This record gives sequence, C-alpha cells and structure tokens, in this order.
Amino acid sequence: MEINESLTIATEALAAANKANFIANNLWMLVSTVLVFIMHLGFATLEAGFVQKKNVVNILFKNIMIVAIGLLSYYFIGFNLMYPGVDGGVFAFGGFGLNNPEGAAGLIDYADGKYTYYTDFIFQGMFAATCCTIVSGAVAERIKLLPFLIFCLFFVTLSYPITGYWKWGAGWLDAQGFYDFAGSTIVHSVGGWGALAGAILLGPRVGKYSKRGIKPIPGHSMPIATIGVFLLWFGWFGFNGGSVLSADPGLVSLVFVNTSLAAAAGAIGAFLVAKVVYKSYDLGMVLNGILGGLVGITASADGVSVPSSLLIGAIAGGIIPLSVNFFDRIKIDDPVGATSVHLVCGVWGTIAVALFGNYGEGVGALGVQLMGIAAVGVFTFSFAFLVFFLLKITVGIRVDTEEETKGLDIGEHQAVAYG
Amino acid sequence: MEINESLTIATEALAAANKANFIANNLWMLVSTVLVFIMHLGFATLEAGFVQKKNVVNILFKNIMIVAIGLLSYYFIGFNLMYPGVDGGVFAFGGFGLNNPEGAAGLIDYADGKYTYYTDFIFQGMFAATCCTIVSGAVAERIKLLPFLIFCLFFVTLSYPITGYWKWGAGWLDAQGFYDFAGSTIVHSVGGWGALAGAILLGPRVGKYSKRGIKPIPGHSMPIATIGVFLLWFGWFGFNGGSVLSADPGLVSLVFVNTSLAAAAGAIGAFLVAKVVYKSYDLGMVLNGILGGLVGITASADGVSVPSSLLIGAIAGGIIPLSVNFFDRIKIDDPVGATSVHLVCGVWGTIAVALFGNYGEGVGALGVQLMGIAAVGVFTFSFAFLVFFLLKITVGIRVDTEEETKGLDIGEHQAVAYG
Amino acid sequence: MEINESLTIATEALAAANKANFIANNLWMLVSTVLVFIMHLGFATLEAGFVQKKNVVNILFKNIMIVAIGLLSYYFIGFNLMYPGVDGGVFAFGGFGLNNPEGAAGLIDYADGKYTYYTDFIFQGMFAATCCTIVSGAVAERIKLLPFLIFCLFFVTLSYPITGYWKWGAGWLDAQGFYDFAGSTIVHSVGGWGALAGAILLGPRVGKYSKRGIKPIPGHSMPIATIGVFLLWFGWFGFNGGSVLSADPGLVSLVFVNTSLAAAAGAIGAFLVAKVVYKSYDLGMVLNGILGGLVGITASADGVSVPSSLLIGAIAGGIIPLSVNFFDRIKIDDPVGATSVHLVCGVWGTIAVALFGNYGEGVGALGVQLMGIAAVGVFTFSFAFLVFFLLKITVGIRVDTEEETKGLDIGEHQAVAYG
Repeated sequence: MEINESLTIATEALAAANKANFIANNLWMLVSTVLVFIMHLGFATLEAGFVQKKNVVNILFKNIMIVAIGLLSYYFIGFNLMYPGVDGGVFAFGGFGLNNPEGAAGLIDYADGKYTYYTDFIFQGMFAATCCTIVSGAVAERIKLLPFLIFCLFFVTLSYPITGYWKWGAGWLDAQGFYDFAGSTIVHSVGGWGALAGAILLGPRVGKYSKRGIKPIPGHSMPIATIGVFLLWFGWFGFNGGSVLSADPGLVSLVFVNTSLAAAAGAIGAFLVAKVVYKSYDLGMVLNGILGGLVGITASADGVSVPSSLLIGAIAGGIIPLSVNFFDRIKIDDPVGATSVHLVCGVWGTIAVALFGNYGEGVGALGVQLMGIAAVGVFTFSFAFLVFFLLKITVGIRVDTEEETKGLDIGEHQAVAYG
Repeated sequence: MEINESLTIATEALAAANKANFIANNLWMLVSTVLVFIMHLGFATLEAGFVQKKNVVNILFKNIMIVAIGLLSYYFIGFNLMYPGVDGGVFAFGGFGLNNPEGAAGLIDYADGKYTYYTDFIFQGMFAATCCTIVSGAVAERIKLLPFLIFCLFFVTLSYPITGYWKWGAGWLDAQGFYDFAGSTIVHSVGGWGALAGAILLGPRVGKYSKRGIKPIPGHSMPIATIGVFLLWFGWFGFNGGSVLSADPGLVSLVFVNTSLAAAAGAIGAFLVAKVVYKSYDLGMVLNGILGGLVGITASADGVSVPSSLLIGAIAGGIIPLSVNFFDRIKIDDPVGATSVHLVCGVWGTIAVALFGNYGEGVGALGVQLMGIAAVGVFTFSFAFLVFFLLKITVGIRVDTEEETKGLDIGEHQAVAYG
Repeated sequence: MEINESLTIATEALAAANKANFIANNLWMLVSTVLVFIMHLGFATLEAGFVQKKNVVNILFKNIMIVAIGLLSYYFIGFNLMYPGVDGGVFAFGGFGLNNPEGAAGLIDYADGKYTYYTDFIFQGMFAATCCTIVSGAVAERIKLLPFLIFCLFFVTLSYPITGYWKWGAGWLDAQGFYDFAGSTIVHSVGGWGALAGAILLGPRVGKYSKRGIKPIPGHSMPIATIGVFLLWFGWFGFNGGSVLSADPGLVSLVFVNTSLAAAAGAIGAFLVAKVVYKSYDLGMVLNGILGGLVGITASADGVSVPSSLLIGAIAGGIIPLSVNFFDRIKIDDPVGATSVHLVCGVWGTIAVALFGNYGEGVGALGVQLMGIAAVGVFTFSFAFLVFFLLKITVGIRVDTEEETKGLDIGEHQAVAYG
C-alpha cells in the first residue's frame, strides 16, 4: 500500500518538477524575446538621433518596416533555412511557414534546457531583422526607400539564414569548431558587411569629404541617440542571456556579468581613446564604445572569465574612435558608425574567442575563428554587394542631390519629423 | 525504513515541485504586469508625439494622472466590481479596497496556473487605466483638464469594470459563449467608444474642417511617437502573454508568435493601403497599422493559427488608413487616430474570433460575438456620452478658442514643453 | 524492486524540484537586474529633460560614465567591501574583483531563495551607481566634468559600500534592528546627502536667486523628463521586487502592489499640494511626486499594509512641492529636485517603517530608524563634503561664468545636443 502510494507520489512529483523546469527555461527564452524585440527601438532611436533633422521620418520608417519584413520573411522562409534540423529539413512538412507537427506545444530539447518550437521561432525571429537594421544606419540620409526595403527582403530572407545555418544550424562551420556564442560574427558582422557594401556603392553624403577635409555632420538629437544605446544594452541582456537557450543560473548570470562589464569597459575605452585622438569628451564615441563592447563580448560571453571580458570590452571600445577615423580617411561615409561598431568589433569579438575563451579542445581556435570570419565575410559582402549593385543599375539606390539636400523626409514621405 | 524514507522524499519533492510551478507561473504574471505598466509610457509618448507642440505638457499630464487615478480607483472599487467571484462578492469582507482574507500570499487557482490574489489585482489594475488613456488621445488639444480627469474617474471606476465583469468576471456575456481573450472588446473598444463619445461632444479642433477641406495637423515629434508604438508593442507581450494567466509554455509562445506576426502584418497592411490611398509612405499610418494589428489579434491570440493571425493583422492594418479617412469625412476629429485603432480594429478583432478561432462548440460564434460587441458598445458609449454630456452642461468640457489657439500648455499649466 | 524504484524516482524528483525553484528564484533576480539597469536611462532622461538645452550633452555624458564607473568600481572593490560575509571577507581570496571559489555557479543561499554569486553581484552592482546618478542631477549645469567623475569614483567605491555594509552586509546598524528594505536610506538618502553636499559647495546657478526673487529655470524637454519618470517606475519593480531576494509569490506581489499604489498616491499628493501652493497643474511636481512616493515606499514595501503604502506615498508626494520650495528659500539650487525626492522622501520612508511597518519586536523601532538616518547622514554628508571640498580647493569644481552662460555642452564637449 505504502509502496504504491510512494511510487505514485514520486512519479507525480517528478512530472511536476520536470514541468516546472520546462516552464522556467521557456519563460526565460520568452522574456529574452521581449528584450531582443526592444533592441529594434534601440536601433531606431540611435540612428534617428545620429542623423540630421531632415532625415528622421525616413530612418524611423525604414527601421519599422525592417522589423515587419524581418519577422514575416523569417516566418515564411528564414527559420526553415537556418535551422533545418529543427523541423526535419528545409521547408519540411510541405511548405513555407512554421512546420511543427506538434503545434505550439512541441518541444525543442537541447542539452541544457527545454522550450517550445514556437518559443524558438520567435526568439530567433527577433534576431533576424537586426542584420538589416545595422545596414540601415550606414546607408542613411541618401538611400532610396524602396530599393533599401527590397535589399532587406533578400538580405534577411536568404543571406542571414544561410550563414546562420553554417554555425547555429549545425552546418559546416560549426563542424570545424568555429565558436560564436550569440553572434559577433553571425549577426553583427553580417550586418556590418552589408553596411560596408551599401556605403561603398552609395558613396558619401554630399559635402562630407572635400578638399577642405572631413566635414562633421552632427546628429540631430543626442537624447534620442542616448535612449537608443541604453535600450540596446537593456535588450542585450536578452540577446546574450537568451542565447544560453535555458535559464541555467550559473551560465546566464555569468553572461550577465560579462556582458555588463564589457559594455562598461567599452565606455571607458572609448572615453580614453577619444580624449587622446579627438581631445574631447565625445558623447557619440562613448555611446558607440558601449555598443562596441557589447558586440565584442557577444561571441564569448558564456566562456571567458570576467577579467577577460573587461579586456575584450575595453579594447572594443578603444577601437571605435580609431575605426571611425579610419573609415573617414578612406572616405567610406557611415553616418552612425555602424561599420565600426558591428563589423570591426564583431571581428574583434570573434578573434577574442580564440584568445580568451575556454571551450575545450578544437573549439574556437584562432585558425578556425579567422576562417569563419573570412567565410562569412566573403559570402555576405558578395551577396550584399551584388544585390545593391543590381538595384543600382536597375532602379537606382541613391536619391538625387536635390532630394538629399532637402532631406528624405520631404522627398520620400512629404512629411517632417517635428511639427 | 526505505519505504518511509521514500514516501517522505516523494512528498517533499511533490511539495517542492508544486511550489516551483506556482513560483514560475506567478513570476510570468508579475513580469507581464511590468510590461503592461510600460504601455502607459507608450500611450503617453505616442499621444505626445502626435499632438502639436503647444499641447504636449497637457497630454503628458493627463496620461500620468490617468495611471494614478486608474490604479487607485481600481484598488478601491473597480477590482471588486469586476471580479466578484474572486473575493466572495462585490465589496465583500466589509469594505472597499483589497479584501483577501489570506493576505498577499492567498492564491488564485485557475485551471492552468496559480498566482496570488495580489498578483491578480496588480496585473488587472495595470489594464484598467488603459481605457482612459485611449480616450485621452481622441479628445486631445481641446478638452479641459479637470472635467477630463473627472470623466476618467467615473469611466475607469464604473464603466470599465461593469462590462469587464460581463465577460471576465464570469458574467452573462461569458455565459453566452462570447470570447475575448485579452480584450479587443473589453479593453480596446471600450476605450474606443469613450473616445468616440468625447470626440463627438467636443467637436473638431479649430480649423480642422473648413470649406477648403480637411486640414492636416501634423504631430510635433515623430521620434517620440515612434517610441510610443514600440513600447506599446513591447508591453503587448505582457498584455496578451499575461492574459494566458499562467506561464504555460505552449500557449504563451503561441500568443507571442501570433501577436508579433499580427503586428508585423499590420505594418505591411497599413503601408500598402496608405501608399494606394495617400500615395505616400506615411509613417503615422504604419505606426497606427502596427497598433491596429495588435488590437485586432488581442481577442484571439491564444486560439488562432499563425496564418490566421497574419490575415487578422494585415486586415486590421489595412483598415487604419481607410478608417482615419472615414472619420475625417464625417468630421469626427481624433488627433491620434485612437478611434480607428482601438474601436474599429477592436470590433474587427472580436469578429475575427468567429471567423478564425478554434474555441470549441458554442464559444465565439459570430452571433454571440456581434451581440457582445453591440452590448458593450451600447452600454459604454451611453455611459461615456452621458458623463461627458453632464460635464458639458455643467462645468463645460472644451477650452475657449483663445486658449486652444495659444495651446493648453500655457492655458492649463502656465508652462511649455520645450525650454 | 518497487521500493528502490520509488526511492530513485523520489530522489530524482526532489533534485529536479529543487533545481526548478533555484532557477525560478534566480531568474527573478536576473530580470530585476535588467529592470534596475534601465533606471539609469530613467535618471539620464529625467535629468536631461529637466536641464537647459545647452547642458544636455553634458548631463547625458555624465550619466553614462557613472554607469560604467559604478559597475567597474563595484566589481573591483565595492562588492567585497559591502558584503564581506558573501565571499569570506573583504578582498578575500587574494585580491580585487569577484572572489567566488566556485565560479559562476556558486550559490548564495538566503532563507527565502537561492541565486548564484554572480547574480548577486550583478543585481547589487546595478544599484551601486544609482547613488552617483542622484548627485548628478543636483549639481547639474555648473559642475566641471572631470572633478565630478572623480567624486563619483570615490563615492561609489567607498562611501556607498561602507554604509551599505552597516545594514545589508550584516553590520552594526543591522544588529541594532534598523530596517530598510530596498534602500530609502541606504541608496536614496545616501545619494541625497551627496547631492546636498555638492549643491552647497557649488552654490546656485548664475541668476537663480537675486533681489528680484527666485528665477524659474524650466527644463528643456518635458517629454524626455516624462520618459525618465516612467522608466524609473518601471525599473522600481525590479529595485523593490528584486530586493525580496527570491521570487516568493506572496512577498513579491505585495511589494508590487505597495510600490505601485505608493507611486500613484505620490502623484495625487503632489498634484493636490502643487495646486494649492503653486495654483497650477504642475507637471514637474507630479513627476517628482511619483518619484517621492517610490522613494518613500522603498524602505517598507515588503512589510506594510496596502492602505499604509497609500498613506506613505501620498505624504511623500505632498512633501515634494513643499520641499522644493524650502530648498529654493534657503538658496540651495537643485535643478532637478533630487534632494527633495531622494533625501527628504528617503528620510520620510525610513521613518515610515517605524510608523507603519510590521517587522516584529525590536526591528524598525522609531529610535533605531532615526539613529540609522542620522548615522548614514553624518557619514555620507561628511564624506561627500570632504571629497567635493578637496576637489574644490585643488582642481576646482565649478565651471567659470562664461562657460556656464554658454552652456557646458560647448564648454566641456564642443558639441550641441540638437543639430
């Protein structure tokens, strides 16, 4: 009697305990999804703050449409393309969209956590649009609206999932031992390569570079830009923390500490280097220094010691003023510094895995990290360059000088940002 | 010996497992509360961005006071009125306020989750003020401050809880099989009916409609308005996700996917229709299109397929430009489009339950959905109209033309928004 | 056979259940960390909105650097200094930084919850910088950048952890029965004392007080300031809710209700008193009234009844207009009202523990609360005064009148906030 009762209770308890673990892990993934979502507002406000008053409606419009396009295209194609193992193959179960035969409650079971198929989709889907948002800043103030949205459709539907699959979909790069925890390469440098391709093909804004040197074109609202950076840091707790793919207390809290301290160190790094290089306490540099620190730690936040994360962040932040300066010298015009933040610091963060990471033998070695950077870079830059180039020779990608001078808000939207 | 030991451990394990499930479910309700709270900032910034510079202090002031009034009146009266089953009857246990004999730790136990009585109150309390916030936008730029606050006091204390009780307090509408998951009707169209009553009784802003046609009065800050829409979307994860009333992984993740894709589809729907109707890439329309998609999916986010949510959101978004146009044609002046977003899309979302929902026999059929829309609409519109009318014939509800021209910031607050 | 099976399952279930509880409690602490983090954006935007247009870059720059300095100094020294019990002693294990021999997964085990060592650090670390942020507002528009940052380094590295240790590190004040749940004294009045010392030593802004009376210097952007207050309230759910140090459903939900209702009552209190004192519906006062209510309830949110929290909040909010008026009369110039909000309401909240709290015999009695207020006040004010004084007589702390008139954005940063 008592034996049966005990067994019954024990079995019931085990089921309830497993359910509780499942709920808690899934809950963290959902909270992370919400945090990553708000990064889109972070990007929108950062970029809006850094552009001129006459182009604010345009940049907001683009950033909103990107989120919509990113989520929908990831739903129809990207998710299946990037994680073929998840649902039995690319476009399995007879079509586009979500293809989980078990419905919303279907589980994804990784080693360290459980969450539902729909949780996996929505968490990953929030990441997807990020790659286009990064491009948006670099090509701001001169790109035509519709060609840009068409570029994004191709970039987020095909380019991002293909290279994402190489690593996170258990593809060939993963098999080589390439390591990129939450996407210094797979998300940020992908966006950065697209940004670089776009900035090169568009050319600089009118008057930016002339015989008299480099003309600073300050952003129109530092409070809006600052809101953007804080919201990005805020969301990064979900971006990196959620990439643990469970609520594992030790791992998520380590990721939180490393992410925060790298961001703080990034601010200090940029502060010091900007003071030396520009002889000024430069708010824009410190803001981008924080972002540089965050991008830098993204590849290794789960596998470096805290002192290492400080070093990774400080170097990333210190790189920012130098890199911004470098791109200006070679006359690649990037109004918000997206290439410096996401491409340069993304590459640095991916290399840092090899220098500071503890992932066991054969994982994240310098050779394979460099190979991953190169492979993703060559593919993504070529893809982005080709799409932008085809758009350029067909519909054109740049507004005319008159529209650029008047501003894209009037030109593309017949509106102004401030009434 | 071993039998006893086993039984002891099993019993202890079961208690611990049940506790963990309770904690996790309650935790999601609390996180949702925080998310719904920030929707008030979303509304405040959306409305502030969409009004003229001279009325910004006024709209911020109103939105802040509404949150305070809403929480306090819901504490004293609304919660008891709306959920009589929760604490043994209206104003049970001898008075106003929270009446849970078990204190903060007292449980609410629904089929799918557990949370405390205080969690239930604070989650529901955050919803309550929303109905007034919706009105706030529609009557902006011309309503007197104090009469508006008095209206809100009555609206949130009596009108919202009474119709809320009909459905969510297990009242007569619920018994008929009316379905409204998170409040397309019970929250959003309630706010929308109040907005409509106010806008009708106030009349349009000076100069809005004249022989020369409809004068566009653009908002004063598109970045602030955009911040509002993103924060509303952000908070909606708690609004809809928390309405599951547990952290059930399958259901909450389905709600997340449906909510996000409906919002994205709403953006696309508004983008396309606005391009056709207004021949322009209209930021305001896309922003309201997202909100329309969110309002539309709110009634059925837990019970439609993902493709259905796309359709619901796209139609809701597409409705927005047409509806805004329609209200302008019949000269009902709504500075922020609240009536189109919350009333029209709220009605659409409630009908969509019947068209796409899977809630079992007799639940959410077209007839009962229409009856619910009508019953809530007739009651709420009458209530709001009566209160506004009584205020109009006593203290007056509209500022004089001179104050309206100078702006309510100076008139009501002797202040300006921008120094 | 069955006995063994039952025992095995029961043991497994117990381990799984304990793990689930651990994950859920730790998860709430991490979510709270994220919420407290965004309070830094709340402070940054509140202060930016309340200062003049010409000092916006400067205040944003300071608030960003404070976060970085606060996190890093708390990592190297503050955390060890404040919680010597946590890791075996001040600078235990041979050095600075985090010293947990068990690594990230090491547990902190309090009576009511479990979380990792790293979770504890990052949650507490987010609090630390707050004390400097409070000072930042009071000394705005006239303090030199570098001396301010040096002050912050000392204040957050030494002063805040020492008094923090007295109470939360189980020091002498804690042993006396002093109670301060989440920091009305330990965080807010500490910041307030520093603010007072700085404001006294700096003197008022040019032209603020003259023979013609008190010159109002309105803030440059009410929407930005309003965003700040809502974000602070938003983050306070983590500030107070996370201070439960577990996800205990009864306690956290009580804290949520008390915190929210005190904030709402604070708005009403400030609204009414401002209407009487200033004969105006004053947005700034209502905003600060909310913050006053939040600061007031912070000491006792876990141990007063809901009606008590209403009273505590209403009184705190009502204090604000009177206190702001008082400081202006004695010519202590505080551009954002930080002293009134954080010092005065912090003291009030700490006294309220004695008047309304239910913490058992000998805990939070009036005598010991007053002693705690005095001890922390004397130490902190002296420390801050000394550091500011030493900086004043060496490098100087105030910009010259020409720079103050032109604005610190040009003077310190060669930049403007709005392009």
